[in-house]
Amino acid sequence: MTLNKATKTDTHTPDLFIGIDGGGSSCRAKLLSSDGAITGCGFSGRANPVHGVAKTIESIIDCSQKAIKDAGLEQSAIRNITAGIGLAGVNLPSLYEKINHWQHPFKRMFLTTDLHIACLGAHAKQDGSVIIAGTGSCGISIVGSKIFSYGAHGFPWGDQCSGAWLGLQAISVSLLAYDDLGPQTSLCDRVCDALDTNPREIADKMSNQPSKEFAKLARLVFEEAKNGDAVAISVLEDGVGYLNKMARKIMATSPGRLSLIGGLRSELRPWLASDVQDYLVDPIESPEDGAIYFAKSKAGQKTSVVQIQT
Amino acid sequence: MTLNKATKTDTHTPDLFIGIDGGGSSCRAKLLSSDGAITGCGFSGRANPVHGVAKTIESIIDCSQKAIKDAGLEQSAIRNITAGIGLAGVNLPSLYEKINHWQHPFKRMFLTTDLHIACLGAHAKQDGSVIIAGTGSCGISIVGSKIFSYGAHGFPWGDQCSGAWLGLQAISVSLLAYDDLGPQTSLCDRVCDALDTNPREIADKMSNQPSKEFAKLARLVFEEAKNGDAVAISVLEDGVGYLNKMARKIMATSPGRLSLIGGLRSELRPWLASDVQDYLVDPIESPEDGAIYFAKSKAGQKTSVVQIQT
Repeated sequence: MTLNKATKTDTHTPDLFIGIDGGGSSCRAKLLSSDGAITGCGFSGRANPVHGVAKTIESIIDCSQKAIKDAGLEQSAIRNITAGIGLAGVNLPSLYEKINHWQHPFKRMFLTTDLHIACLGAHAKQDGSVIIAGTGSCGISIVGSKIFSYGAHGFPWGDQCSGAWLGLQAISVSLLAYDDLGPQTSLCDRVCDALDTNPREIADKMSNQPSKEFAKLARLVFEEAKNGDAVAISVLEDGVGYLNKMARKIMATSPGRLSLIGGLRSELRPWLASDVQDYLVDPIESPEDGAIYFAKSKAGQKTSVVQIQT
Repeated sequence: MTLNKATKTDTHTPDLFIGIDGGGSSCRAKLLSSDGAITGCGFSGRANPVHGVAKTIESIIDCSQKAIKDAGLEQSAIRNITAGIGLAGVNLPSLYEKINHWQHPFKRMFLTTDLHIACLGAHAKQDGSVIIAGTGSCGISIVGSKIFSYGAHGFPWGDQCSGAWLGLQAISVSLLAYDDLGPQTSLCDRVCDALDTNPREIADKMSNQPSKEFAKLARLVFEEAKNGDAVAISVLEDGVGYLNKMARKIMATSPGRLSLIGGLRSELRPWLASDVQDYLVDPIESPEDGAIYFAKSKAGQKTSVVQIQT
């Protein structure tokens, strides 16, 4: 449905919003008109400014243009769109400033973290909490006007039990096994196969690679743990121990709801402690929906959401 | 002493050799004439091609020019010098090729690993073994024609108990403590002071930094461990456990001699297991001397050393 079609049937032009969720591996956009008549979706590459502000902006533009096209609008409509953007990495003040001062093409742009929009979406802007486990990992709880956040410190020093962290551990234990300085593990062959290399050349393949390349190896840890490899199980138990601690800290803030989201949610869930699994609920809406709530709130619409301090 | 002075007193021009040892934090050169009459030293910045081939070449040239100047020679003498170069990172085949095919200014250039020249120097080209613990970590044992090597897989997936690894652990445990998801540690304040930042902005400071910047934090782990901080002690014990295993693997190859070298040698030694400490001997000569042995051997001089396969 095009903007022209929409305006022909309405007495006034509906406001246009786009919600964008950017992380270490991909960027998603959802376009929505205030009357709900116009919708569109877009998908593009990685958008974590830690690994490049220029690439992040390119991905935001790319998925926006795809959503505009998907909605049947002219690309020039971007000038009429109010954008809510949640990005990994903008909890770092310097990166928040860089993206926030970008000469963007939107009518208005409001920036926050991927964690914030994920939580707003998962609980339809009501109180609640989320743990994201995708390329990175982090958690947030929003209770009344209080916000509690955990992790989101980045890779490789943080993001325990994220895809990137699991991939890094897979490489590390493989190299220890190769040198016979750690227990033998089926991960060593699996990692070499996945990287099409041998242990001596793993570093050659992985040097200066972004976190998403490490995250691609995470599935091997789950697969080999299921196959009974003791080292893979140990890696997962270490990582999940971190997520259990985070979940219990979040549960202690009484958020009412806790959703596990991100690319690893299905594979991780059965590894979590039973008290944590019992507390989990499915998210109501997507992070992109949360980004639209955020944009509407910041644009002065009736929708009001807790503002996160960045 | 200049080349002119030397040639005036000799019946023939002595051959000139330079030994260069390049790692993640610095690069050292030693110039020596075949008659021992001309000597010079040079020191420059980091020279690990994993973190940049161009910077590595710049550092090699820089320390060579300083050694030539220190020896009282004209810079044009570089064309008469046979170079032996041992670098971190060239165990990775693609980096070995890049550096080995560099249009260097020397008469001849022979390339090997930093580990190889360190071992040749430490034992005056006889059988022996070394563990290097500096910005990175690795080990090698040369027994007859056999070479056994361990580690040298790079940071952050390998190099356990290296300066960079200890620095990374210091950051990681500090952030866990900040989120109250790990035990409290005095390292958190020390790391923030050293980086002139707060826990929320550590990632901002450290993103895309080379391993030498992480290695600068290693001293905090030793200091806080000495002060009794349980987390710092635990980090050190984990790392030293790896070095003990490596040392015992090396000792099992019967190298006769094992030297601990690199920037952390003095601080690490008292943390090693007593059987490992008892086996350690002081190195006889420097890695730069080892690089000169290597160059002489490759250049067909009487000195012969085991060749490492790269």
